Amino acid sequence: MTEPAELRLIALRNFPLVKPQDDLQSVITQSLADNQVTLENGDVLVLAQKIVSKAEGRQVKLADVTPSPQAVELAKSTEKDPRLVELVLQESNEVVKTRGPVLIVEHRLGFVMANAGIDQSNITHGGDNDSALLLPVDPDGSAARLRDGLQKEHGRKLAVIINDSVGRAWRMGTVGLAIGVAGIDPLWDRRGDQDLFGRTLEITEVGLADEIAAAASLLMGQGDEGTPVIIVRGVDYRSADRGISPVLRDKEFDLFR
Amino acid sequence: MTEPAELRLIALRNFPLVKPQDDLQSVITQSLADNQVTLENGDVLVLAQKIVSKAEGRQVKLADVTPSPQAVELAKSTEKDPRLVELVLQESNEVVKTRGPVLIVEHRLGFVMANAGIDQSNITHGGDNDSALLLPVDPDGSAARLRDGLQKEHGRKLAVIINDSVGRAWRMGTVGLAIGVAGIDPLWDRRGDQDLFGRTLEITEVGLADEIAAAASLLMGQGDEGTPVIIVRGVDYRSADRGISPVLRDKEFDLFR
Repeated sequence: MTEPAELRLIALRNFPLVKPQDDLQSVITQSLADNQVTLENGDVLVLAQKIVSKAEGRQVKLADVTPSPQAVELAKSTEKDPRLVELVLQESNEVVKTRGPVLIVEHRLGFVMANAGIDQSNITHGGDNDSALLLPVDPDGSAARLRDGLQKEHGRKLAVIINDSVGRAWRMGTVGLAIGVAGIDPLWDRRGDQDLFGRTLEITEVGLADEIAAAASLLMGQGDEGTPVIIVRGVDYRSADRGISPVLRDKEFDLFR
Repeated sequence: MTEPAELRLIALRNFPLVKPQDDLQSVITQSLADNQVTLENGDVLVLAQKIVSKAEGRQVKLADVTPSPQAVELAKSTEKDPRLVELVLQESNEVVKTRGPVLIVEHRLGFVMANAGIDQSNITHGGDNDSALLLPVDPDGSAARLRDGLQKEHGRKLAVIINDSVGRAWRMGTVGLAIGVAGIDPLWDRRGDQDLFGRTLEITEVGLADEIAAAASLLMGQGDEGTPVIIVRGVDYRSADRGISPVLRDKEFDLFR
């Protein structure tokens, strides 16, 4: 008989709606208590981008945005609100591709994504109160602050990942991806490891943080109430503080830019 | 007080090495018993591509491969074994991109991937016995046969996903992706659903099977012994029998081909 290896993902239910200036650390700690969940050493907390952005006041009223001529132009071809396109351009290093309504940019943080991560569903619709939600200014920094605070408060060694649902080349459907990390090496470098036959693996660097982000996304999407915080327990990872940038492929080495 | 929502991933440990002609259904059933794991309705079994390929005898001896002139040419620029390149070409619809040692193709099943899924680590090194492991001929069919058999044997409603570790555009690190599915809709179409504020979601189609494949990959990679079968319990999915092809973006609508 053998003991199966297990990985558990725990969604904090009845997580309150997050408002600007909310202290996410207190909200999470309160929700952990409400759910009777005690953090353990090695737990990875995955937070949905939207709650981090909301707490950090990254909501922008469209009425306050003045589109540039370039935004007006792009808005026509993509059939989008010019003010939204203006925000996308402000949040981006460059436009990577555009066709029909699709607008793929390199976000200022280096992520290649549609609309700089500003989804239509992120926009509140209410006349002059229409607003869009931008990605956090510094997701690695946000993750690091939360990790430090939660570690101290709960006396456990933790990692934090901020994830977002992002579209992909070649495949339909969004998947959870890591946009900020703290306390975890986002890549698992297996080069030099040996396979089952003692041969050295030649390739493999695993996108560990992205796999965790995708796994957490499975639970975030379920139910009507929304569960933006997931605790992932049982992943074997290396602690590190180099943020998410090692995951970003250098533009010059990317065949698909 | 609230009950947290949970998702469990269970890795079958001490899974035996799979050989050509092995009956995977029996091997899995035996391993479930060894691990004292009882299947439940709704369980998703994720199988590593390599064990499906091995059981189906998809190992090819390089000594038996005669490279075409095109393969010889490509082998020079990519610094690969011409016989490996020949296999890659035989397994592919077309070469998508190549630069340096990187050879990205459209696999005959429609997947855009490096080396048609034939990894260097898939190749046994032993003089004339060098061999490469190809993807299963029909991963959807393999998944469907296993699902039907396991459902009958265990009296539970199941889904089966075959996954592989695949590289991506824009990001370093491989992630688990679904290459064959049965009993699960690989996409979760949320268009028409409402968000927390009762607004209709405009975008979102979720790559559910790929997120499950990535989650399972987290457990497969751990430990030395290799755990190629993972049971995912607690995912809310729609049963369907349309295979993996709905996930493949039509070439003409793909901006990154």
